[in-house]
Amino acid sequence: MQKCVRIMASRVEQIHNILTKLKAGHDGVEGCLLVTAQGLPIDSALDSKADEDLISAMTAAISSVSERVTQEMGKGQINNISILGDYGYIILLDVAARAVLTVLAKTDANLGLIFLLAKKSCNQLAELI
Amino acid sequence: MQKCVRIMASRVEQIHNILTKLKAGHDGVEGCLLVTAQGLPIDSALDSKADEDLISAMTAAISSVSERVTQEMGKGQINNISILGDYGYIILLDVAARAVLTVLAKTDANLGLIFLLAKKSCNQLAELI
Repeated sequence: MQKCVRIMASRVEQIHNILTKLKAGHDGVEGCLLVTAQGLPIDSALDSKADEDLISAMTAAISSVSERVTQEMGKGQINNISILGDYGYIILLDVAARAVLTVLAKTDANLGLIFLLAKKSCNQLAELI
Repeated sequence: MQKCVRIMASRVEQIHNILTKLKAGHDGVEGCLLVTAQGLPIDSALDSKADEDLISAMTAAISSVSERVTQEMGKGQINNISILGDYGYIILLDVAARAVLTVLAKTDANLGLIFLLAKKSCNQLAELI
């Protein structure tokens, strides 16, 4: 039982480390959030005081509707979604169809590099969830 | 009355011309679709036999949920949304907050150029709707 709790704690730590590393890895990244496919928050590395529960639920809603649109338009499974607002990007990446990694980035960020870093984080996260 | 009908017909033609021109303007563009902010189809230039009503409704749903997420995350108003699937991109652009222009593009398309062309089309469409 104790061993099981230790493994679980270690996984939680590893997930948190991946998120904080992603946030620290590039100036353009403002924060990130890991959410289950059902819209429940797992962990985050955010500065802002945004409502995590609300964002988690809406993130899953965007993924779910987008999934249907891509299938309907013959574009297969979703790899990523990027939303450009007036003050920056919100990037959503699929994590092994079980979770969604949301990354906040600045408007002038190097999007290609952020996608590479975030994709690497997704692969690491996929082994933990 | 007849004059009014002629102006209306001319607008419909102009909208259709903008969409077909956008589709023909770049090899990477597979098709495009103009939808009201409420999710009703206005016009399209698509090859595929996808369900336009369904896509229109879902396009508006993605825009609406994304709008809330961007505001909640302090990113202001949405400029565009791009979704990368296994077999290509779906790009959604705001048209004067009254409609959404959806562009289908190939995976290896020059996304920067497509954004430029699509943005130009959005400006032209904004004057017609």
